[in-house]
Amino acid sequence: MSEHGSDRSEETATSGGRRNPAEEARTLVSRVTTGHLATVGEDGDPWCSLVVYGPTAGGDPVLLVSTMAEHGRNLQRDPRASLAIDDPSLPGDPLDLPRITLAGRCVQPEGDRAEEAFEAHVAAVPGARLYAGWDDFTLWVLEVQRVRWVGGFARMETIDRGAYGYAEPDPTAPGAAKAVEHLNAEHGAGLLLIARELTGARGAVSAYCTGIDRYGIDLACTGAGQSAATRALFDEPLQKVADLRPATVALVQRARAAQEG
Amino acid sequence: MSEHGSDRSEETATSGGRRNPAEEARTLVSRVTTGHLATVGEDGDPWCSLVVYGPTAGGDPVLLVSTMAEHGRNLQRDPRASLAIDDPSLPGDPLDLPRITLAGRCVQPEGDRAEEAFEAHVAAVPGARLYAGWDDFTLWVLEVQRVRWVGGFARMETIDRGAYGYAEPDPTAPGAAKAVEHLNAEHGAGLLLIARELTGARGAVSAYCTGIDRYGIDLACTGAGQSAATRALFDEPLQKVADLRPATVALVQRARAAQEG
Repeated sequence: MSEHGSDRSEETATSGGRRNPAEEARTLVSRVTTGHLATVGEDGDPWCSLVVYGPTAGGDPVLLVSTMAEHGRNLQRDPRASLAIDDPSLPGDPLDLPRITLAGRCVQPEGDRAEEAFEAHVAAVPGARLYAGWDDFTLWVLEVQRVRWVGGFARMETIDRGAYGYAEPDPTAPGAAKAVEHLNAEHGAGLLLIARELTGARGAVSAYCTGIDRYGIDLACTGAGQSAATRALFDEPLQKVADLRPATVALVQRARAAQEG
Repeated sequence: MSEHGSDRSEETATSGGRRNPAEEARTLVSRVTTGHLATVGEDGDPWCSLVVYGPTAGGDPVLLVSTMAEHGRNLQRDPRASLAIDDPSLPGDPLDLPRITLAGRCVQPEGDRAEEAFEAHVAAVPGARLYAGWDDFTLWVLEVQRVRWVGGFARMETIDRGAYGYAEPDPTAPGAAKAVEHLNAEHGAGLLLIARELTGARGAVSAYCTGIDRYGIDLACTGAGQSAATRALFDEPLQKVADLRPATVALVQRARAAQEG
């Protein structure tokens, strides 16, 4: 591996080469619109039910629920709630998939905040415009106080409101699955070059992209009877889905330069 | 439509031509192994988190949870819990899909009941054998006291423990999706014959199977610029997945006899 490629990887990794738990949490909350809400029943019993939500700019979930539903009546009486969010579209053991619980209190937003909250909800749940005006529906913002993030088996962390509110959702997440599919279908040679020249997997004979995010790409490499998970970092954090393509092209060019250099 | 076909349909429908809410609930609990559990936190706050479960013969979910997890510690302190179950693999608006909440108390089963509960859990979650013996894991049975079933928009019902425990899960449910796919791919003419001769949709020019269960099949029919949802009933409730094929063949034969008769 060239000194250039090696140095660069380590340098970027040190300054944040992977989404931290707060960023993972914000990304998950932004990507999903369905969750399960725990509220307090009339007799103090915990009540769990499915809800849809849209997050505010700060990551607080906005709910629009009917008092015809048990959770709607529960919130009127006791504002404490927690919302569990995971992405059931991901394959694999559900206990090994990323998930979070957002715990806090529900408040009814007023004035400009009510309008912002409503827009946040319908941006995620467009159909809600249909019933938003009905008498029995109330807009609630779950003001998140504490976040429990589970990344999979034995990867977990508690995040406070400050870190959660400050973190950015990964802006490339909506395009990640498609980009991974495209890279594996069309750019196997480029991935292998990246694996060999930029991630230290010099003996790799195959490289398969397992993930992509604003900071870099994850590769599963095989070679010499071994397999390894490696990662290559982009020059800078990406700012939008459309950055994924030029950033991966740049990675391949850097790998090629390293090979020739 | 022949008198025979018509009479038969109405007769079977009257004596239970569709799964009732308790059967829907039991079927959903049997088909899914992942749910979201609401428990009571140390300060009385509601806590929501993902769990996996397997149901006992009576439909009580069996959990195997660690005290390393917040819900595990919560149950040690307060046995009240509710479990929300839905099937995220189904397409469509999540608010219009079937779902249930099972509310009750968690108990640690003892003796034979502990063994039965353990077997119920690992039948649904085979990987649990791996960690079942670890010190921090506890087996809990959620003794269901109350069930809230939501069938979709404006279809909901509360079911008590008696009705829930007494109802049978639909034994054909594990084969239903595949049967629907097969019927639509290979037996369009048979479905159309059923629609015309047995469900009253005499003017139908197309019939598409939208669902199948132990009691009958649901069809979406079109013809004369109209569309309609209709249903044809089997002679008897089916007892296993393998009954789906002969029962649908029998329906087609009955439709043919009606056409010729």
